[in-house]
Amino acid sequence: MPALAPVLDHLDANLDSSLERLFGLLRIKSISTDPAYAAECRRAAEYLVADLKSIGFDASLRDTPGHPMVVGHHDGEGSHVLFYGHYDVQPVDPLALWNDDPFSPTLKDEKGEKVITGRGSSDDKGQLMTFVEACRAYKAVHGRLPCKVSILFEGEEESGSGSLIPFLKANAAELKADFALICDTDMWDGETPSICVGLRGLTGEEVTIHAANRDLHSGMYGGAAANPIRVLARILADIHDENGRVTIPGFYDGVEETPSQIKRAWDALGQTAESFLREIGLSMPSGEKGRSVLELVWARPTAEFNGITGGYTGKGFKTVIPAQASAKISFRLVHKQDPDKIREAFRAFVRERLPADCTAEFEKHGNSPAIQLSYDSPFLNKAKDALSDEWPKQAVMVASGGSIPIAGDFQQLLGMESLLVGFAHSDDRIHSPNEKYDLVSFHKGQRSWARILDRIASR
Amino acid sequence: MPALAPVLDHLDANLDSSLERLFGLLRIKSISTDPAYAAECRRAAEYLVADLKSIGFDASLRDTPGHPMVVGHHDGEGSHVLFYGHYDVQPVDPLALWNDDPFSPTLKDEKGEKVITGRGSSDDKGQLMTFVEACRAYKAVHGRLPCKVSILFEGEEESGSGSLIPFLKANAAELKADFALICDTDMWDGETPSICVGLRGLTGEEVTIHAANRDLHSGMYGGAAANPIRVLARILADIHDENGRVTIPGFYDGVEETPSQIKRAWDALGQTAESFLREIGLSMPSGEKGRSVLELVWARPTAEFNGITGGYTGKGFKTVIPAQASAKISFRLVHKQDPDKIREAFRAFVRERLPADCTAEFEKHGNSPAIQLSYDSPFLNKAKDALSDEWPKQAVMVASGGSIPIAGDFQQLLGMESLLVGFAHSDDRIHSPNEKYDLVSFHKGQRSWARILDRIASR
Repeated sequence: MPALAPVLDHLDANLDSSLERLFGLLRIKSISTDPAYAAECRRAAEYLVADLKSIGFDASLRDTPGHPMVVGHHDGEGSHVLFYGHYDVQPVDPLALWNDDPFSPTLKDEKGEKVITGRGSSDDKGQLMTFVEACRAYKAVHGRLPCKVSILFEGEEESGSGSLIPFLKANAAELKADFALICDTDMWDGETPSICVGLRGLTGEEVTIHAANRDLHSGMYGGAAANPIRVLARILADIHDENGRVTIPGFYDGVEETPSQIKRAWDALGQTAESFLREIGLSMPSGEKGRSVLELVWARPTAEFNGITGGYTGKGFKTVIPAQASAKISFRLVHKQDPDKIREAFRAFVRERLPADCTAEFEKHGNSPAIQLSYDSPFLNKAKDALSDEWPKQAVMVASGGSIPIAGDFQQLLGMESLLVGFAHSDDRIHSPNEKYDLVSFHKGQRSWARILDRIASR
Repeated sequence: MPALAPVLDHLDANLDSSLERLFGLLRIKSISTDPAYAAECRRAAEYLVADLKSIGFDASLRDTPGHPMVVGHHDGEGSHVLFYGHYDVQPVDPLALWNDDPFSPTLKDEKGEKVITGRGSSDDKGQLMTFVEACRAYKAVHGRLPCKVSILFEGEEESGSGSLIPFLKANAAELKADFALICDTDMWDGETPSICVGLRGLTGEEVTIHAANRDLHSGMYGGAAANPIRVLARILADIHDENGRVTIPGFYDGVEETPSQIKRAWDALGQTAESFLREIGLSMPSGEKGRSVLELVWARPTAEFNGITGGYTGKGFKTVIPAQASAKISFRLVHKQDPDKIREAFRAFVRERLPADCTAEFEKHGNSPAIQLSYDSPFLNKAKDALSDEWPKQAVMVASGGSIPIAGDFQQLLGMESLLVGFAHSDDRIHSPNEKYDLVSFHKGQRSWARILDRIASR
């Protein structure tokens, strides 16, 4: 097994040249959502293909109906990992709010830290280059990588990933590895690296309650005619009990209790309901009672009402009893909850509560199961140890309340679990003017990947 | 007391000339909502002033900031009544749907009945002329009226009655009578005249529930952040119990039980929940259980949800937890319910149910008490007997689920009760193309007013 220490030394010694390579990539205006920048996207892909080739990858640009993919493979012993990142970036409007040209990266001081400025510095060019630099250092020092490595860089992540699923399907055999490494997420804080091990799934439903065959005058019919807003409000009110639990029968089937040591680790992060909610003007968790706010958003399922409409909603007043009212409802799912079963259980729950005169119409929106790594997965624990060696604080296994589609796609299409490790900070202003990436993230990110590859390769 | 029979005979003998006078009024395009017809509105008022003068009224046109009022007074012995009608009409668009020119009235056959065609034939020129013709016949036969009569014709009823309240206030002493007669309503059916004795009041409220200080991602915050749609749905669901009763404390204060003989009379009308609701596609009353559908809409208070909105309501789906959600709610009031107390009770009801993190904002819309004639009022019973003498079936005392503002204005500004008696049919297509008024309504309406004046004058 190639020794790690000289690789880390090499990364330290070559930080400046790695910065130059990143700056070269950042100067390319690879805005994927705007067709005017299609050639720039292609140029970014070509830049990466050339860079991967320069360190011995069998790399190529792969055309798609959208922007091209970059795929590279490098031989190695033992495990096989697939690294994913994306080279496309968000638009830069409003340009007037940028302090520096978004495509002329610089290194500057911000609050006592050196930061790399520019669109894509954090999301995701800076992040993906941390991995490339780790590979480069291994090759420079040892002439080989510690394990077999494949790389997939996408160019449509910021514009809907339209080509991704067909590409994964068409190239499944080539891309399938033992597991995936995805570098597109945040650290817990500047000293604490994180690995995202859980992603909540989603069942989205729209329900419309129909009552009378037309809107009615509430004076003429009020008290006699069914009011679909009233019917809908009663159904929605029934969905949660007094303790914030969802009352739909079978809803919690497949939900697992988070291991107590994980809960203790989350508690140790010091995030309280107050600290979590203060910034949005709230103070009390609304979900199941007796659970920490991090457990609620990372490891518990929800029923949330995302939209409701019925009757007259303009200025002033109209004494109408509407013919219909509707709501959009999303269920965030965890662990082994079955999105289809949740959908059917919800629909049955609504139908059981319908007055004889009313009907319900349903529309399906979104259907994805949760993704949950096993907390005792060896890959996971190796990565955790590697990160803990590099950073001042122990790595923490976090979850994400939202979904990260690529992890679900790898799971469903390639049968491959993903380790989500990233070095971005929540104040990196991704998608906003003045995006930045901390130099410490870029440097220690490279070292982190070197350490992770080292751990993965070890038996 | 002037004898009634020769007056009725006179009306029968002069139906054709009364039709000519109505046609003259119907030919005037007094569309009040369109400024282009302001001169026509004035011409209709002048036509009526001249007609009232021709039968001995001290009549005059009274300018207002809008269209003019017509006021007439005629001496008489004993009681003093104020008759109200309106000479303005609705617009006629879409003109293409009319079978006849809306302003060239004709007499034609429809389903075996003779009907008067044209805009305003039913609403309200035809109706108001029934009263004028009754007065004319009295004068022609006896040279006097059986009681003191004042008349008020408005020209802005179809466009918001903007001048009415200031005019009533400014001329209260002149217009105050013992009670008012209002001819702008329907018969129960073609054989059954009706008197409207109850008008529900209204308290309108808009409530907005505020939670987080901005819209949130339901993945990131779902389960932790308060959802104002959920809070609102739970509050709305609490407003009715399982039996359809409103649960707001004190809501039923001032609500009286309808006398059993009135309920029996309503039951005798043969209106069932099925017959009432069938036309709108429903079958089951939604209000308090154990009460007939007519009692529910005429004599019971309601809480109806007229509008609700929150979060994303467009096409598709957005996984947002909104910062706010709001609903428009109207309470129809009966008898002695106090609109201000209902409003305060509702607001307290909402506040008691607010999670600590949420706030509620209220906006007031509409505030009018119910109007309820005493079922044993002598005026009422005289009118009922007079109508029952004229028509094939006994007159029925009905109520209106909606409000008729003029009756409330007379009550509040002049301290005067109103008898609402009208001869329109529900199929008169008022406000629509091909408005008509049954010739029987026009003829027997005249005779009805002659009989009512006769009864009022009797001791």
